[in-house]
Amino acid sequence: MKAEIITIGDEILSGQTMNTNAAFIGDVLTRNHIDVTAATVVGDKEAPILEAFRKAFNKNDLVLVTGGLGPTHDDMTLDCIVKYFNTELVKSDEVLTDIKNIFEKRNRKITPSNEAQALGPKVADIIRNHKGTAPGTWIEKDEKIFISMPGVPFEMEEMMTGYVIPRITEEKLENKSNRISKSLLTTGIPESYIFERLGDMDELLQGSTMAFLPSQYGVRLRITVDGENSEDVQDKLSYIEQKIRTKVGQYIYGTENDTLEEVVGKLLSERDLRIAVAESCTGGLISSRITNVGGSSSYFERGVVTYSNAAKVEHLKIDEDMIEQYGAVSLEVSRLMAEGIKAVSGTDIGLAVTGIMGPGGATFNKPVGLVYIGFCDNKICTAREFRFGDGRILNKERTSQAALDMLRRSLLGIEYED
Amino acid sequence: MKAEIITIGDEILSGQTMNTNAAFIGDVLTRNHIDVTAATVVGDKEAPILEAFRKAFNKNDLVLVTGGLGPTHDDMTLDCIVKYFNTELVKSDEVLTDIKNIFEKRNRKITPSNEAQALGPKVADIIRNHKGTAPGTWIEKDEKIFISMPGVPFEMEEMMTGYVIPRITEEKLENKSNRISKSLLTTGIPESYIFERLGDMDELLQGSTMAFLPSQYGVRLRITVDGENSEDVQDKLSYIEQKIRTKVGQYIYGTENDTLEEVVGKLLSERDLRIAVAESCTGGLISSRITNVGGSSSYFERGVVTYSNAAKVEHLKIDEDMIEQYGAVSLEVSRLMAEGIKAVSGTDIGLAVTGIMGPGGATFNKPVGLVYIGFCDNKICTAREFRFGDGRILNKERTSQAALDMLRRSLLGIEYED
Repeated sequence: MKAEIITIGDEILSGQTMNTNAAFIGDVLTRNHIDVTAATVVGDKEAPILEAFRKAFNKNDLVLVTGGLGPTHDDMTLDCIVKYFNTELVKSDEVLTDIKNIFEKRNRKITPSNEAQALGPKVADIIRNHKGTAPGTWIEKDEKIFISMPGVPFEMEEMMTGYVIPRITEEKLENKSNRISKSLLTTGIPESYIFERLGDMDELLQGSTMAFLPSQYGVRLRITVDGENSEDVQDKLSYIEQKIRTKVGQYIYGTENDTLEEVVGKLLSERDLRIAVAESCTGGLISSRITNVGGSSSYFERGVVTYSNAAKVEHLKIDEDMIEQYGAVSLEVSRLMAEGIKAVSGTDIGLAVTGIMGPGGATFNKPVGLVYIGFCDNKICTAREFRFGDGRILNKERTSQAALDMLRRSLLGIEYED
Repeated sequence: MKAEIITIGDEILSGQTMNTNAAFIGDVLTRNHIDVTAATVVGDKEAPILEAFRKAFNKNDLVLVTGGLGPTHDDMTLDCIVKYFNTELVKSDEVLTDIKNIFEKRNRKITPSNEAQALGPKVADIIRNHKGTAPGTWIEKDEKIFISMPGVPFEMEEMMTGYVIPRITEEKLENKSNRISKSLLTTGIPESYIFERLGDMDELLQGSTMAFLPSQYGVRLRITVDGENSEDVQDKLSYIEQKIRTKVGQYIYGTENDTLEEVVGKLLSERDLRIAVAESCTGGLISSRITNVGGSSSYFERGVVTYSNAAKVEHLKIDEDMIEQYGAVSLEVSRLMAEGIKAVSGTDIGLAVTGIMGPGGATFNKPVGLVYIGFCDNKICTAREFRFGDGRILNKERTSQAALDMLRRSLLGIEYED
């Protein structure tokens, strides 16, 4: 089954909004063995929208459109669908009830422009919107499927996972190819180092493919395997994964869409350990990432963002003389911060960071990107130096990743190589 | 001048990586009066890459390609450029020196695969990479420009702003059209409410266009105006902006790419006020957003993430009986948290949030999405209730935005309407 994703909106072409929807849809389709052949973006004009519909629906079995379904004047997807499928708009009482319920729940009064959203093309099945007001549409023609969904990401996402994918699967339209993909997520090692360690790629992959996808959080290794049957592809994948793990296994913290905060959250839960975090340069990002995980209150006790020295002294009971002597950005202070937050909170683990994120704050000996991470558990207190690059927010993200990885290594008993 | 953006990578089609590069490039081009006619994504295969090059270079004056320039086997953009422009690869000593410097700075040893990146097409000018190893290329042919850049966002971004745009401007290839766009950023009011308040859109816009772009942070109103000359478009834009501000001005916190944390940071700096933050449900996100702004250490004193009740009692000196009586998620406790963090830190302002982010933690009276935000300055202590929707991370983001907006309103003396 071949699919094309069309995103509608001037705001996407002009970069005002990121095309997260195409990424989400591409991911869900790929996981369900549907080949994404192209992803195109068109502006809010009738002619290019209709042309994109025609081209995509001619070349593919499945077309998914997002955007242009809102309650305002610049939303023209519905009109284009009506024209393209030569149909008309009809009112849906079910959708009107859904819209009224949403406004009631938020203590807001409904507006006429929202009531007008209870319209759908006559030839379409309505996809109900459980998170917002604009419904989606599902149209079948010539054994092909044309789907439109709203551009608000969480509304579209719920429709994809709650309706679109189950219905495609149910109608047995999917074409289960003997292809699987798996991502191994590494952190703390550069792309080129992994490449060198893996050695001869042809020998490793034997006809399969692998992509190296770097970001500030690490390098994703995405392996794609084709084969005779599902057993064959599983065998090939296992072989490649095993080889990779032998060579860079200690840097692999998860697979697929795991986040490092989920991984360490699970490890803390399993071991029944509680953590507290003291942050300077990351400004709360590490605590925020840990608490992005549902249920984190069972292992995350507290965090402090001790930006000022006074806060370090008061909340972490650090001797002011030590800060004077070593400087707030130092190996010693990061260890004392970890020790302090552990003692004050009475947790099993204290994690702490201090560093220079830029653009200001650097000195001759302490450049932008210099970071110290401290770690204490019931056995040891330790600290490490890291050197990142430029970019304040990137450095915050890199530092939070390195700190969570230090926690992961400690929980799993994996020593650093150097 | 017409431009097309091509993004290369299976990982984009399959949604493993978001296409942030197309968004960034689209934004920069639009601001520089270059029309983006299309944005296309192709996979890591030679034939579709070459076809995309051909189509885009035929139809446009400028083609910008990102991705596929890394040090590993799946990076094939350079080979495709060599084929498309019928040229060859040559070594660049300048690039080799840049690569060596990067590795030295990070205390890492250089690998042979990195050294191989010091190659570029003979017909191209090299675009130096100041943030990474793969250089970009600039090729001119038939009075058109073909540019390729690495896929790592911050490397590409530096090349765009540091080299590509200045050179395009310098070569006076840009076609200054009499079109301007401006975004007004609102928060705290739904899209449909703004639409109703603005009334007759044709009367307001008089031939100009406006897009409503909602997200969890609010609704972006993007106005685009065409006209006879630059004075004419400025007049039209001012008229529309003024009309909008009259009707929903209190909800507008910024323009273009302003963030609310930058806006409140500027207000705090100007007024010489210092702030401290106590967070429960947002888990550090508010502190992290405030400290995303360079120089925030001059007004951000500290943050505490008091997830446990013990932390609320210890760090904020809240009477444990009050938490017992009203519950940790209550109007009263949010106000006490704001009062507590202000007193403990000795700042001018205390900001605090408590709420239920989901998926767990809800009770009959306290559903997921219920949030209380407390605020204290030297004159008053107050608190407000908010009701958001589902989705833990979305709720954290919405709550952080509402809290920063409460701060903005207070600093500007703007009362809530209800």
